[in-house]
Amino acid sequence: MNAKLTGNHARTQVISVSALRSAAAGPLSAHPDELSVEEPLEIRIAGETYATTMRTPGHDHELTAGFLLAEGIIYSRHDLGGMAHCGRLGSEGAGNTIDVLPAPGRVLDPEALAHTRRGTLTTAACGVCGRKLIDDLVLRLQRPAASVPFERAFIASLSEALRDHQPGFERTGGLHAAGLARPGEGFSVVREDVGRHNAVDKVIGRALLDDRLPASGAVLMVSGRTSFEIVQKALAAGFSGVASVSAPSSLAVSTAAHFGLLLCGFARKGGFNVYAGSERLAT
Amino acid sequence: MNAKLTGNHARTQVISVSALRSAAAGPLSAHPDELSVEEPLEIRIAGETYATTMRTPGHDHELTAGFLLAEGIIYSRHDLGGMAHCGRLGSEGAGNTIDVLPAPGRVLDPEALAHTRRGTLTTAACGVCGRKLIDDLVLRLQRPAASVPFERAFIASLSEALRDHQPGFERTGGLHAAGLARPGEGFSVVREDVGRHNAVDKVIGRALLDDRLPASGAVLMVSGRTSFEIVQKALAAGFSGVASVSAPSSLAVSTAAHFGLLLCGFARKGGFNVYAGSERLAT
Repeated sequence: MNAKLTGNHARTQVISVSALRSAAAGPLSAHPDELSVEEPLEIRIAGETYATTMRTPGHDHELTAGFLLAEGIIYSRHDLGGMAHCGRLGSEGAGNTIDVLPAPGRVLDPEALAHTRRGTLTTAACGVCGRKLIDDLVLRLQRPAASVPFERAFIASLSEALRDHQPGFERTGGLHAAGLARPGEGFSVVREDVGRHNAVDKVIGRALLDDRLPASGAVLMVSGRTSFEIVQKALAAGFSGVASVSAPSSLAVSTAAHFGLLLCGFARKGGFNVYAGSERLAT
Repeated sequence: MNAKLTGNHARTQVISVSALRSAAAGPLSAHPDELSVEEPLEIRIAGETYATTMRTPGHDHELTAGFLLAEGIIYSRHDLGGMAHCGRLGSEGAGNTIDVLPAPGRVLDPEALAHTRRGTLTTAACGVCGRKLIDDLVLRLQRPAASVPFERAFIASLSEALRDHQPGFERTGGLHAAGLARPGEGFSVVREDVGRHNAVDKVIGRALLDDRLPASGAVLMVSGRTSFEIVQKALAAGFSGVASVSAPSSLAVSTAAHFGLLLCGFARKGGFNVYAGSERLAT
């Protein structure tokens, strides 16, 4: 393996390529195309590798903050000291590694926290992988605070509004999107990424860095399907609702129902399905 | 956390629920709906937890075999002794844990293998997460064997043919699909799962258990996008090509190009784009 596959686009979201197009008939024809960039991000805590995630570069600080919140490593921006990419700009791997330092007086100890909070030791982590039991993961979650019920017209508007903030998807067809929306304000932040959990982490990380969590009264809107992991991250950030363009999984629905989180799916063309937390909708 | 969120559907792929439908106007109306099932699968090697993945139950032996192949823990079915779900049927967690034993005379040692083959130690794994460098992961991959070039009409036919094997997607809209296809034979195996990497692992695991790897001369067709991870798994199984209904990522394209793997995207409506390995297409 001599070619360096990674690190070439560590600071780019979309790249231009030439692809060959094969129609149903006729010769192959070269045409310009654009690809979403996928590169690894190694997240270190005080110099030690904690996790590596495949992501679209950009907003790495947000991704890291949101990821560490969902993991239960941090609870607010006041737990964070510094965050910085490692290596000199232009050197190998620069841009694909980020190191997190705790705020003065705080301790970011993945193993100790994991042991205390979940009763299990984990030495590497990736979303919900490496966890022995989902029940351990949801132990520290709680019911979102009471908030003003959502008008159905607001939920129904989110799908189309999100599309207006997906320039990368328009160009590549290969990026998921997530956004934080409030009634009367619309989307205050939208992020795109090859990984839908990364897009969610970036949105939540932005809110955390702005000290705007818990996200009570807000909806997390996602462009794709809703898995358990999306619901778990939304609950960790204190959202009142989750809405998605496509289908939820069984575990996403049962987890949302357990915690009283509004969960809507198939939000498109002005309509949507409600799978959990319908008491959070205005009557 | 008193309610048991997991284990309720450890052997089911689709469940029926009642959802509320909100149209653009008018009252909410209850209607029957179906959800794709998502449950954790804990994979153990000789009793020790190796990884936990969120998957749709069913074909767990295939999922485990395919996953361990991609991880570099096994190389053929002859490495495998037994595989069995832990716990009595009906007991808590039964169906969501599977234990793998090595064949007589074989050793399945994740740490030793990782150390030997990749130069790094990993103690937990989830797809490509927890890996320090992509370059480590691709070290053991090789160029697919030479095979008869694919007719373009064959590649163009795969998208529609795959749809004929996606009953779970038809019902829920929430399942990805992957399939193994050969010219003249069509799909010999198709699997659906909430995780697209799981669907791929199940397809590859089936071929491994049938002792039909490497999959030279075959195409791995996936219903969604193509990430690095999909390409890495296809290369580990010896496929000659990968085709998908949607977009590839930058790293999927560069990895396929490096190893000379045919990579097609946007395979729909009789046409497709070629991003790598066009020399594997008939002229």
